[in-house]
Amino acid sequence: MAEYQAPVADILFTLEAVAGLEAIAALPGYGEATPDTVQAVLEEAGKFAGEVLAPLNAIGDRAGCRYANGTVSTPEGFAAAYRRFAEGGWNAIAFDPEYGGQGMPWALTSALQEIWNSANMALALCPLLTQGAIEALQLCGTADQKRTYLPRMIAGTWTGSMNLTEPQAGTDLGSIRSRAEPAGDGTYRLKGQKIFITYGEHDFAENIVHFVLARLPDAPAGSKGISLFIVPKYLPKADGSLGPRNDLRCVSIEHKLGINASPTCVMAYGDNEGAKAFIVGEPHRGLEYMFIMMNNARLAVGIQGLSIAERAYQRAAAYARSRVQGVPADGAKGAPILHHPDVRRNLLTMRALTEAMRCLVLYAAGALDRAKQHPDKTERMKNQALTDLLIPIVKAWCTDQGVRVASLGIQVHGGLGFIEQTGAAQHYRDARIAPIYEGTNGIQAIDLMGRKLLRDEGRAMKALIHDLSATVSQIGPESELSAVRPILEAAINLLETNTSQVLLMGKRDLSEALAVATPFLALCGVVIAGALLVRSALLARTISGESGFAAAKIATARFFMTNIMPEALAQSGMVGGGGASTLAFPLDAF
Amino acid sequence: MAEYQAPVADILFTLEAVAGLEAIAALPGYGEATPDTVQAVLEEAGKFAGEVLAPLNAIGDRAGCRYANGTVSTPEGFAAAYRRFAEGGWNAIAFDPEYGGQGMPWALTSALQEIWNSANMALALCPLLTQGAIEALQLCGTADQKRTYLPRMIAGTWTGSMNLTEPQAGTDLGSIRSRAEPAGDGTYRLKGQKIFITYGEHDFAENIVHFVLARLPDAPAGSKGISLFIVPKYLPKADGSLGPRNDLRCVSIEHKLGINASPTCVMAYGDNEGAKAFIVGEPHRGLEYMFIMMNNARLAVGIQGLSIAERAYQRAAAYARSRVQGVPADGAKGAPILHHPDVRRNLLTMRALTEAMRCLVLYAAGALDRAKQHPDKTERMKNQALTDLLIPIVKAWCTDQGVRVASLGIQVHGGLGFIEQTGAAQHYRDARIAPIYEGTNGIQAIDLMGRKLLRDEGRAMKALIHDLSATVSQIGPESELSAVRPILEAAINLLETNTSQVLLMGKRDLSEALAVATPFLALCGVVIAGALLVRSALLARTISGESGFAAAKIATARFFMTNIMPEALAQSGMVGGGGASTLAFPLDAF
Repeated sequence: MAEYQAPVADILFTLEAVAGLEAIAALPGYGEATPDTVQAVLEEAGKFAGEVLAPLNAIGDRAGCRYANGTVSTPEGFAAAYRRFAEGGWNAIAFDPEYGGQGMPWALTSALQEIWNSANMALALCPLLTQGAIEALQLCGTADQKRTYLPRMIAGTWTGSMNLTEPQAGTDLGSIRSRAEPAGDGTYRLKGQKIFITYGEHDFAENIVHFVLARLPDAPAGSKGISLFIVPKYLPKADGSLGPRNDLRCVSIEHKLGINASPTCVMAYGDNEGAKAFIVGEPHRGLEYMFIMMNNARLAVGIQGLSIAERAYQRAAAYARSRVQGVPADGAKGAPILHHPDVRRNLLTMRALTEAMRCLVLYAAGALDRAKQHPDKTERMKNQALTDLLIPIVKAWCTDQGVRVASLGIQVHGGLGFIEQTGAAQHYRDARIAPIYEGTNGIQAIDLMGRKLLRDEGRAMKALIHDLSATVSQIGPESELSAVRPILEAAINLLETNTSQVLLMGKRDLSEALAVATPFLALCGVVIAGALLVRSALLARTISGESGFAAAKIATARFFMTNIMPEALAQSGMVGGGGASTLAFPLDAF
Repeated sequence: MAEYQAPVADILFTLEAVAGLEAIAALPGYGEATPDTVQAVLEEAGKFAGEVLAPLNAIGDRAGCRYANGTVSTPEGFAAAYRRFAEGGWNAIAFDPEYGGQGMPWALTSALQEIWNSANMALALCPLLTQGAIEALQLCGTADQKRTYLPRMIAGTWTGSMNLTEPQAGTDLGSIRSRAEPAGDGTYRLKGQKIFITYGEHDFAENIVHFVLARLPDAPAGSKGISLFIVPKYLPKADGSLGPRNDLRCVSIEHKLGINASPTCVMAYGDNEGAKAFIVGEPHRGLEYMFIMMNNARLAVGIQGLSIAERAYQRAAAYARSRVQGVPADGAKGAPILHHPDVRRNLLTMRALTEAMRCLVLYAAGALDRAKQHPDKTERMKNQALTDLLIPIVKAWCTDQGVRVASLGIQVHGGLGFIEQTGAAQHYRDARIAPIYEGTNGIQAIDLMGRKLLRDEGRAMKALIHDLSATVSQIGPESELSAVRPILEAAINLLETNTSQVLLMGKRDLSEALAVATPFLALCGVVIAGALLVRSALLARTISGESGFAAAKIATARFFMTNIMPEALAQSGMVGGGGASTLAFPLDAF
């Protein structure tokens, strides 16, 4: 059996049942995303991921990257695999056809990102970072910049990197110190050090286009004085061919807990004359541009949580299907450990969380597509508000569940799970970055509480709750899911009550609301993802007929509602009563 | 500041408030364990752990062990540190004074084990395994065996290893294949392969005494046909000096996720003429002896969860006290990230879980001491039942929380947490073994449900609930903890209700009870540990006066009750409603 088999059937089903694939294909510009085409694309991607990317995953983890004299060598096979990825057109899926992209909806792009990251998260990070850079350019590049960079970055022959963090400026980008001085010819000379730069240097592509945040000499202090620059490794000539090497270098790479095959670089800009830099958009608006791009980047990181969970589940299920140990309570002597109720519980927890994450991710991606392409402005605005609301939930909840599922995957293997050769441990290590980067999950919770809830006084959340409630009323008394209807109804009510509660809390005492932002986000995650899983299960017989697939989907939804949804009670209790004791603790006692 | 400072004040406080140190010191044989002596011992241990063991922790993780031609080299400094540990008498604390032990109570021994494992879990595993071997001998060794092995093992000049697992026999020890044939002179010749043997080979000590499970030729099939053997690396001569090398060798060591400085060995016994082996106790009773020893071993592994949590908390708190990033909601510009409510919440979660684990561990250790030494037989039996009930809870709940706290420790560090050099990642890797070894946490949950609850029809649990309820009635209306009284009362009621529920469930359908064993154990863990933390907080002013210590303890208990105890609601919901959906899932759909 292949090490990883893309769950094409479940992805396609979730796209139809939750993202509304048919309606998306009816949006302007997305006409090619018919279910048949989407299925063909997913199958092709699954094949490539399973045959080319997945077998490199453990190899890359063991070998890691090597640094020498400013160059970075990725593990054997990675550069070739990346080039096949780019040559296959996979890098171009989501982008503007004017520059060689395929203009596919984000729902499909997100589904593909799931597959790449399941197969090989360390490798998939390179296109993920390039995607951010492409969007920055699409958003606010000049016509010249677009013409020079977009076709090559979309083709994947040049890659992108995002340079935000400095040692003293992580979450607080306002304290960035890198500086860019006008050179008098419309370009700039940039100096500064950046850390944690994913694929800041590598051997995949002929050029790397760095997007760098820095201050202009006249910049106001803080976050309103940051500008965004293009700083290419090799300066393109007028014809687009590679010119001289720019004044920038990779100084070192980090030794990390996981994603070892992806280089995490310390980058030095302008150690000599200053790195030649080109401003993107207007001065001082760099952070603003970053925040606009962030929805897609955060969605992509949330997807990584889903991806690792899927991979960990496949590995654990394969082991539990084959390992024989002890006589299960059902008396099936010689039966594999799958028969033990506690092992089955672990596997089902992994599976139910994974499928619920897939629902949440593709629901958000569908909203993103509607926000971009819906012909009706009200619909666009409604879906933009929904996307904005969902993004921090997708990012934080899915990445937390990714770690949890990877850890369960180790547990299913028993002692073998702790041995690196088994492979389960790599997922546990790789998964752990996702709750941290692209804004820690604490930042996501604060973003949800502040910008996404308090700022619009809960309007987007109320609209979402209204949408989820429709699922409750669709569960008829004869439904196979009728037993979970009251559980879902109670969970949605809990979300509604707690939303009202934190809206009041936020007005009264912002600190208290921020002190319960994390459990509030966790509450949102479990209720929304669980409701969407039930929604999909309700459509399973219609979409898949009397198949084993439909039966399993319904059983998974029932498991979720009785074994995972109860977590909503815990989170709700913390939201309601936990803030004051957090704030009351004497700071000098830590 | 030292990398690790033993929390002597909190350990001593918890020993007094929860374990009942004074009453333990009044038990026969424990007269030396006065509070003053205990404090002096803890301080001395803290000094040794902080100065000698803790600085080696990261070094050992990076270097790992090296295997060559049957020998294992531990990382530089480890062997010398172990010898200082043994020379300091630390190995002898808990054991029989007749053989050179110090006969101290398990409450103190457990407190010391916390310190050793916080400082250096990989090193501390060696004495932990030796402890198991010593107990096996104390329990059922012949006078000759005791005279030969005990003084040296208690002194730590010889170490012990426990050889249970074989590739096909992990959880199910009944399927062990290693065989021992009588040699005609009262000894045996043992052949077989054992895996996952911690400190099966190393360079700490002049001899290693392997305790090996194997079958005699006439053994009944399954778990009732396993015998226990001593198989020393070097065969002792009559005068106790080292004789010839035995026919056994370490074949390889594993590459693991964590605890890299501790060798995990594949051991081959009897590749040539058969390893010379000495039976311990009676034939075919090996598993029974193992189960008797298991209480202490599982307690010790539970302690590792506590230990890693304490170390991770100290590291995260130190970082949060010094790292400045962003302006917190309290407006304290230039203040460290400790001021951000969400960071504080993470730190308090780590702290509250750690202190609650300490309560649970020392409460169980106190019960163990009473079970062994109480002059009144009824008290001994009552405490033995309590110990038996608590052990799986301590083992599973504390090790799961250890992983959780270590993961939070990474999160507090942001991006730095993912960089190995920071140190937080090691705790996350090291912690992950504890839910697996010494019986996976799934096995603990099944043990709790079956042997500890259903078998005695919940009597021990009811007695425990009665004891915990006393704490509720001690919270007066004027108490600083009065606000959490209803929360604690509701949590204990939940435990009582769910206990009755699973007792009925177990009679009706054992599989269903086993399918909810894990959430039932989690419910027990959070309710019992939380109740004990409140119990200790109620005594804080009495024991520590109007100190900052008492104020922090009370604030921590309040945090636990409002931010962690709500998890009881979730677990209770799963216990009540989760079993059927787990069992209903079609097995062929995995």
